[in-house]
Amino acid sequence: MEQICLTSTARQRSREARRNGKRIGFVPTMGYLHEGHLSLVRTAIRQTDFCVVSVYVNPTQFGQGEDLASYPRDLEKDRCLLEAEGVDILFTPTDDQMYPGMDQTRVFVPKLANGLCGAFRPTHFEGVCRIVAKLFHVVEPDVAYFGQKDYQQAAILRKMAQDLLMPVEICILPTIRDNDGLAMSSRNIYLDPLERQAALSLHQGLQQGKGLVMRGENSPSRIEAAVREVIESNPLVQSVDYVAVVDPDGLQPCFFPLRLPILIAVAAHVGKARLIDNVYVTGDG
Amino acid sequence: MEQICLTSTARQRSREARRNGKRIGFVPTMGYLHEGHLSLVRTAIRQTDFCVVSVYVNPTQFGQGEDLASYPRDLEKDRCLLEAEGVDILFTPTDDQMYPGMDQTRVFVPKLANGLCGAFRPTHFEGVCRIVAKLFHVVEPDVAYFGQKDYQQAAILRKMAQDLLMPVEICILPTIRDNDGLAMSSRNIYLDPLERQAALSLHQGLQQGKGLVMRGENSPSRIEAAVREVIESNPLVQSVDYVAVVDPDGLQPCFFPLRLPILIAVAAHVGKARLIDNVYVTGDG
Repeated sequence: MEQICLTSTARQRSREARRNGKRIGFVPTMGYLHEGHLSLVRTAIRQTDFCVVSVYVNPTQFGQGEDLASYPRDLEKDRCLLEAEGVDILFTPTDDQMYPGMDQTRVFVPKLANGLCGAFRPTHFEGVCRIVAKLFHVVEPDVAYFGQKDYQQAAILRKMAQDLLMPVEICILPTIRDNDGLAMSSRNIYLDPLERQAALSLHQGLQQGKGLVMRGENSPSRIEAAVREVIESNPLVQSVDYVAVVDPDGLQPCFFPLRLPILIAVAAHVGKARLIDNVYVTGDG
Repeated sequence: MEQICLTSTARQRSREARRNGKRIGFVPTMGYLHEGHLSLVRTAIRQTDFCVVSVYVNPTQFGQGEDLASYPRDLEKDRCLLEAEGVDILFTPTDDQMYPGMDQTRVFVPKLANGLCGAFRPTHFEGVCRIVAKLFHVVEPDVAYFGQKDYQQAAILRKMAQDLLMPVEICILPTIRDNDGLAMSSRNIYLDPLERQAALSLHQGLQQGKGLVMRGENSPSRIEAAVREVIESNPLVQSVDYVAVVDPDGLQPCFFPLRLPILIAVAAHVGKARLIDNVYVTGDG
């Protein structure tokens, strides 16, 4: 595995690989890797011929008062994990490489980015689109991999890539969970043992909601209320940003009577962590 | 010369060319080609190995009440001209190819796009960035060529490409003029003979302004007033959108005392045509 810090070198490696007839798989991350990231990496390695993983904590996707400074980092461990998986290129650019000069160009996907997390983190998805557009222009992947936990992010990036005719396929893979159901997230490190227990309520609430739908409940507001009740019943959950039943394509609120498939998505604050999770409910269980 | 309508085929041809070690030169146009376009094409052919020219009248860069429907078109003549120059690919996509689905992704460069033409055509440069980003993702050029007449457009696109780390160099080439000094533009076809005569006042005003600067005038407002006077003295000039002395990089207004280089830029309405022109003034004449 080669570690690269320069955009010019990273692009050169991708172009060499493509010239040799290889398909390029790309997993953009902010590092502090967990099994969720690694499942993306393994799929990239299986499905493509040349695997690039980036580790870059992107400042423009953090809002004021958010956890940019304290976001967990452990590049040495990340490097070992990726080396063990057989990754070809670890791309670890500096801020100077990703934001040279007085960067001012904005990329955004208004309708998909307005609701859900976008309503609580108004500049977040603009920062995500901006950095991922840059990374795509450097790495020039054929396929890029994202996790379903960040469903809205993945939907926005897929739409961005389609709309701008970017030559990349966006592949969204299932959320990886701990044995007890907690969705893996680098931010879980913020949780103490009691908070971690409380954080399970997100998954439990979503499972409750999914169960209601499977048993025929067709009122979005009753489903949202039931999910919210499970989560808020836990005193260590400080606040729930949203519980929402939306259509999985446009991410717009669903109306009564529900038509499947739907996505039930939640965001809540537990301790210092803002956690998100979601469940996709089709008609076939 | 091969004419291509599908984005997938256009990308395939570029990738084949790159695989064969060729550098790709790209000239995006809205067609109705004149010597200005052809000078870009000739430079592309001289400087690169594979020349792609697109002809596409992009609806999103026209505002309400602008001339989208009446914009001049003559694809048969354009094809003959490009064939004669030795262009490799003429890319003529349909709206369906460039805007598939419910396209919603926006790309914009706020500071550079706010002033000059952006103040009078508030959605114009967003439409330009959007279509050029798409075209770049399809054609994947090494160098793209733009004319200096559309100075603000070229500056915005260069900034977009730099900021988003697009692997393309933006090359801005001098304005091509008729013998009498009128900057070539597809929209000159809107002018009747008397209006065409009146349109010369833009170039004359700019030359007057440049002359003042060369003789030591260092007040932007006096220069702007002098340029405006030349233009407005012509009764067939219906209105002047702006006369502005700006710094050529940031396109922000210059203050007294002037420091070179500067750009003097104008936009004015003559008959049915909205015309623009500019002059770049360095210290060395």
